[in-house]
Amino acid sequence: MHCCWELVLPPVSTVMAGLLKRALRLRTALRCLCDYNMLSRSTATLSPVDFHSPFLTCSSEQVLASTRKLHAGADGSKVSPSAAPERLPFCRVTEEDLAFFRKILAGRTIVDPDLVEPSNVDWLKSVRGSSEVLLRPQTTEEVSQILSYCNSRNLAVNPQGGNTGLVGGSVPVYDEIILSTSLMNKILNFDSISGVLTCQAGCVLENLSFYLEERDYIMPLDLGAKGSCQIGGNVATNAGGLRLLRYGSLHGTVLGLELVLADGQVLDCLSTLRKDNTGYDLKQLFIGSEGTLGVITAVSILCPRKPKSVNVVFLGCETFEQLLKTFQLCKSMLGEILSAFEFLDSECMRLLNTHLKLPNPISDCPFYIVIETSGSDPTHDAQKLHNFLEEAMTSSLVSDGTVATEEAKIKALWSLRERVTEALTHDGFTYKYDISLPVERIYQLVTDMRKHLGNRAKSVVGYGHVGDGNLHLNVTSPSKDPALLAAIEPFVYEWTASCRGSISAEHGLGLKKRNYIYYSKQSQAVALMGNIKAMLDPKGILNPYKTLPDNLKQ
Amino acid sequence: MHCCWELVLPPVSTVMAGLLKRALRLRTALRCLCDYNMLSRSTATLSPVDFHSPFLTCSSEQVLASTRKLHAGADGSKVSPSAAPERLPFCRVTEEDLAFFRKILAGRTIVDPDLVEPSNVDWLKSVRGSSEVLLRPQTTEEVSQILSYCNSRNLAVNPQGGNTGLVGGSVPVYDEIILSTSLMNKILNFDSISGVLTCQAGCVLENLSFYLEERDYIMPLDLGAKGSCQIGGNVATNAGGLRLLRYGSLHGTVLGLELVLADGQVLDCLSTLRKDNTGYDLKQLFIGSEGTLGVITAVSILCPRKPKSVNVVFLGCETFEQLLKTFQLCKSMLGEILSAFEFLDSECMRLLNTHLKLPNPISDCPFYIVIETSGSDPTHDAQKLHNFLEEAMTSSLVSDGTVATEEAKIKALWSLRERVTEALTHDGFTYKYDISLPVERIYQLVTDMRKHLGNRAKSVVGYGHVGDGNLHLNVTSPSKDPALLAAIEPFVYEWTASCRGSISAEHGLGLKKRNYIYYSKQSQAVALMGNIKAMLDPKGILNPYKTLPDNLKQ
Repeated sequence: MHCCWELVLPPVSTVMAGLLKRALRLRTALRCLCDYNMLSRSTATLSPVDFHSPFLTCSSEQVLASTRKLHAGADGSKVSPSAAPERLPFCRVTEEDLAFFRKILAGRTIVDPDLVEPSNVDWLKSVRGSSEVLLRPQTTEEVSQILSYCNSRNLAVNPQGGNTGLVGGSVPVYDEIILSTSLMNKILNFDSISGVLTCQAGCVLENLSFYLEERDYIMPLDLGAKGSCQIGGNVATNAGGLRLLRYGSLHGTVLGLELVLADGQVLDCLSTLRKDNTGYDLKQLFIGSEGTLGVITAVSILCPRKPKSVNVVFLGCETFEQLLKTFQLCKSMLGEILSAFEFLDSECMRLLNTHLKLPNPISDCPFYIVIETSGSDPTHDAQKLHNFLEEAMTSSLVSDGTVATEEAKIKALWSLRERVTEALTHDGFTYKYDISLPVERIYQLVTDMRKHLGNRAKSVVGYGHVGDGNLHLNVTSPSKDPALLAAIEPFVYEWTASCRGSISAEHGLGLKKRNYIYYSKQSQAVALMGNIKAMLDPKGILNPYKTLPDNLKQ
Repeated sequence: MHCCWELVLPPVSTVMAGLLKRALRLRTALRCLCDYNMLSRSTATLSPVDFHSPFLTCSSEQVLASTRKLHAGADGSKVSPSAAPERLPFCRVTEEDLAFFRKILAGRTIVDPDLVEPSNVDWLKSVRGSSEVLLRPQTTEEVSQILSYCNSRNLAVNPQGGNTGLVGGSVPVYDEIILSTSLMNKILNFDSISGVLTCQAGCVLENLSFYLEERDYIMPLDLGAKGSCQIGGNVATNAGGLRLLRYGSLHGTVLGLELVLADGQVLDCLSTLRKDNTGYDLKQLFIGSEGTLGVITAVSILCPRKPKSVNVVFLGCETFEQLLKTFQLCKSMLGEILSAFEFLDSECMRLLNTHLKLPNPISDCPFYIVIETSGSDPTHDAQKLHNFLEEAMTSSLVSDGTVATEEAKIKALWSLRERVTEALTHDGFTYKYDISLPVERIYQLVTDMRKHLGNRAKSVVGYGHVGDGNLHLNVTSPSKDPALLAAIEPFVYEWTASCRGSISAEHGLGLKKRNYIYYSKQSQAVALMGNIKAMLDPKGILNPYKTLPDNLKQ
C-alpha cells in the first residue's frame, strides 16, 4: 500500500505555504476521502459509542431476552452481580397520589402506558422498568413539591434526563415514579464576558451548543449522545466525552448547581463565580452521583471560546510504545492546541473494513491514531501540525498518515474512530468494557485478554481515549456465550484493579455495575458513600438500586 | 507623558520580523525597565499578596496588639464575628499523652516552647494560639495513629502545612495539638507520559515546581507563597493563584487524595486516573475543607507541559468598560495562549510611585492591565500578541502599553501587580477584602465604596484577577479606625451578597471569616456542611473553630 499525506489547508502566507510544501515532499500519494460512508458527528444523536455492559450489543430480540433474564436473576442458577436486587419496601402509587400530582402538574402527570413506556426502557433496550407514572415538571418549585410529597409518602423516584445512560441508571428498576427534566429546558443566562452559561437541567446538550456557537463559544463537553442527552444528566453522571483532554472534567467546569434534595429542600449552589472558597464545595458531591443524592434542576458552566481552526490527523504506528511516544511528542509540539488523541487497533480497522466497508485511508498498521487540534489561528495551527508531523516521521514514530482541515474530511476521519462500536455490532454478540488505566498500561489489557481467551473469542479489540487513559475493550462471539463471559469476568476487573484502574471510566455504575464498585474503590470509601447517601436521602427514595452496592443497603 | 511600546522578541523569521516592524511603527518611544525596583517572583516566598483580613497590615506592634484583642474579644465592648469563640471542652494534653506520642514519633514530638512558637503564630502575625505540642509525622500510618489516639482521648488537632494561610486557619486557636506535615515531603511518583505527579502532602510547592521543570512540566498552580506553602495545604484550602485562569481549579486538576479521617481511618482516594466514575467523588469534599474534615497525607495532580514561550504586556485603559472589552478581545485573539489577565487602578499606581518609587512604565491612565501569554511556539505567540495589540490600539480600547518577553523585564512588569500589597502597607492601616463577583461588576464595588466612605478613608484601591472575577479591595487609614471599619463592614459583605458574589474568593474562611459565611452561602447549604462535619468528625477534633460558623456548633 502506498503512503499518503494529504494536507488540506486554509489560505496561508507564502512562507507558510513553503513550509507546508516541504512537508508534502515527505509523502507521495494522496488518497481521496470522499468515498467514505460518513457518519455525521453533528447529526448523530445516539450512536452506541463506548457501551460497556456485558448485555449488549446484538439484535434487539437477543437484548430483550437477556433483559428479562436480568430482572428475573440472570442466567438461571447464579444471580449475576448486575441483576436487579429484590424490590425494596417503598409504597405503591395510589389514586390519591395521582390526584396530588395532577393538582401540581396539570396535563404533565402521564399515566398512559404507551406514553410512559419510552421512559421505562433505556435506549439500548437492555433494561426495563415497570413504572406507571411519568411526571414532567417545568420548575424547581414543582420538583421540590414532588420530592417533598414522595419522601413523606415513601414513594421511590427515578430522576431521568435524556435517558441516554449506558449502565441502566436512567430508567426505573421496578415501579419508581419517573421524574423527567425534559420540560425544564430554559436557558437562564449567558454572560458573554465570562463565558458562563446558566440553564435549567433539561436543556439538551446539542441545543446548548447551537446557542453558544452563535455567540462564539462552545460547551466544554461533547458526546455522541448530544442530540438527546441533557446537561443535568451529563452533570449527574459526570459525563466525559470528546473534549475532556482539552477542557477537563465537569468537576472543574461546572461552577454552580441548583438541586432538590430527597425531602424537597432546594439547595442553591448556583454560583456563577470561578472562585468561591466559602465553606465546603457541596455541588461537587452531586457531580457523578447519578441522581441518588438529589435532583439537579439548574447548572452553571464555564464555556470556552469557539476555536477558529480545527484539524484532524490520522496516523499509523507499528507498536503501542511508538504510539505512546507519539502522544508525548504531540503534547510537547502541539501543546495548547491539542484537543484529542484517540486510538484504534488493527482489529478495529479490520471490522470497519469488513462490516462497514470503510477503507483504511493509510497503509495497514497495527495501531492507528486520531489527533485533533483546535486553536485560534489557522496558520499557526497548521504550522504546529506540520512541525509535529515532520518530527514524528523523521524519528520514525509513525509510519503513515493523512491530514484533514475541511469539515467533511474531518468527519470522515473521525468516523473511523466513532464507528468502531457500530462495526462491532455486526461482528456478533459483544462484551464491552470501559476501563481507565495508567496510560502506559492501556493496551496491555487487550494483549493479555487475547492470550487469556485464546480462540474462545471471535474478536478482541481495543480503542479509546489515549489522552485520558481510557480504554474501550470489546470481545465478540457468534452469540451470547456464558462460558466466554465467565472467562472474561472477573479477569478483566481483577486485571484493572491490579493496576489501580477504574472499572467504569466515564459511564458510571448505575444498576448494572453497582456491585463491581469494590474493584475500584476501597471498602472504607464505599462505606463513606453509604453514609453520605443515608444522610442526604435517609429513606433511600432517590434512584434506588443504583450506584451503591447491594450489601450497603441491607 | 510619551507613549511607549517595547516589543522585545526572541529571534524570529524574516516574515515575523516584518510583521513586528509594523507593530513598532505604531509607537515611537521606548522606555527602559531596568531601573525598576524588582521583586523577584521566583525568589519571593511570603509576600503578603492579597491578604484580606481586617486586622492588617501595619507594623508588627500594631498587629500583635490587635491579635491579643482578637482572642480577648476584639475592641472591648462588642465581640467581632471574627473573634475566637470560647474554648470547647476538649481534653488537655497530659504526660501520658506525650509518652504515647514520643513512642510513635521519637524525636519528632516537640514540646520546647521556642520550637513550638513559630507554629502557634500565622505568618502575618495576626493570630496566635497557645499549643504546647507540635507533632511531625513522616508517614500516613503515623498520622493515622495520632488521630486515632486524639479522637479516642478527645484531644483537638490543628493540621498545619506551610502555615501561609491568610484567615487564621493554619494555627491553633487555643491549645490544639499541632500536626505538621512538613516532614511528609517525598515525591512518590511522576508519570512523564500522563504528567501525573503523586507526592506526600508536605512537599513545598516551589520544590515540586523545580522537580517538574527539570522534566519539562509545571505545576498547575502558582502562588506568591510557593517557597513555603505545601501542596497538602494548597489542596486543603483550594488555593487559586496565578494560573487558575489557564489551568482551572484544583477540583479539576487534583486526581487523587489520600486522607486520614478524624478517627484515624485512612481513606485511599489516591487515584492517578483522569476518568473514574465509580461512585461518589469523595476527594472533592476535602478540597477546600481547610483541614476540618480530614488530614490530607498525599496528593496526585495533573501537571501541564512547561510553556516554551512566555510574554507579558502592560496596558493602560481609560475606563473599566474598555478594560472589560479588552478582556473579551484578548480571549478571542490570544485564545489558548492567554494565561493571566490582571488589573490595578490608578490609585494602586499612585501608591507604587509614592511608597516604592516604582515608575509607571507607560502614560498615566485610570486603569492598568497585566496580560501574560504562555505557549509552545515563541513565534506564533509573538504574532498573536502583535495582532491583538494592533487591534486593541486601532479600536482605541487601550491608550498605551509595553511588552516584555525577557525574564527580567517580565518580572519587572509583574512586580507592578504583585507589589501593590507591599505599597499598601506603607500607606497606613489597611482593611483588606478578597471578593469574587460577576466580572462586569468587579470595579463597581470600588467606586461605590469610595462614594460610601467619602473622606473617611485615606485611600480606596482596587486590583486583582479580572480573568477570574476576583477583586482585591483595600481601604487604608492613618491608623486603626473602628469607625472606618464599621463603615466598611457589613457594607462590603452586603454589597457582595447582593450580586451573589463570594466574600472569600480564594483564601477560605478559617477562623477570621467563619461567621461571614451566610453572606455567600444559603443557610440550608451551611446546615448541610454542618451535617457533613458531624458525620466525618463527630467529636469535632479536627481544626476546631474554623470554616463553619459558631452557631452550627452550639
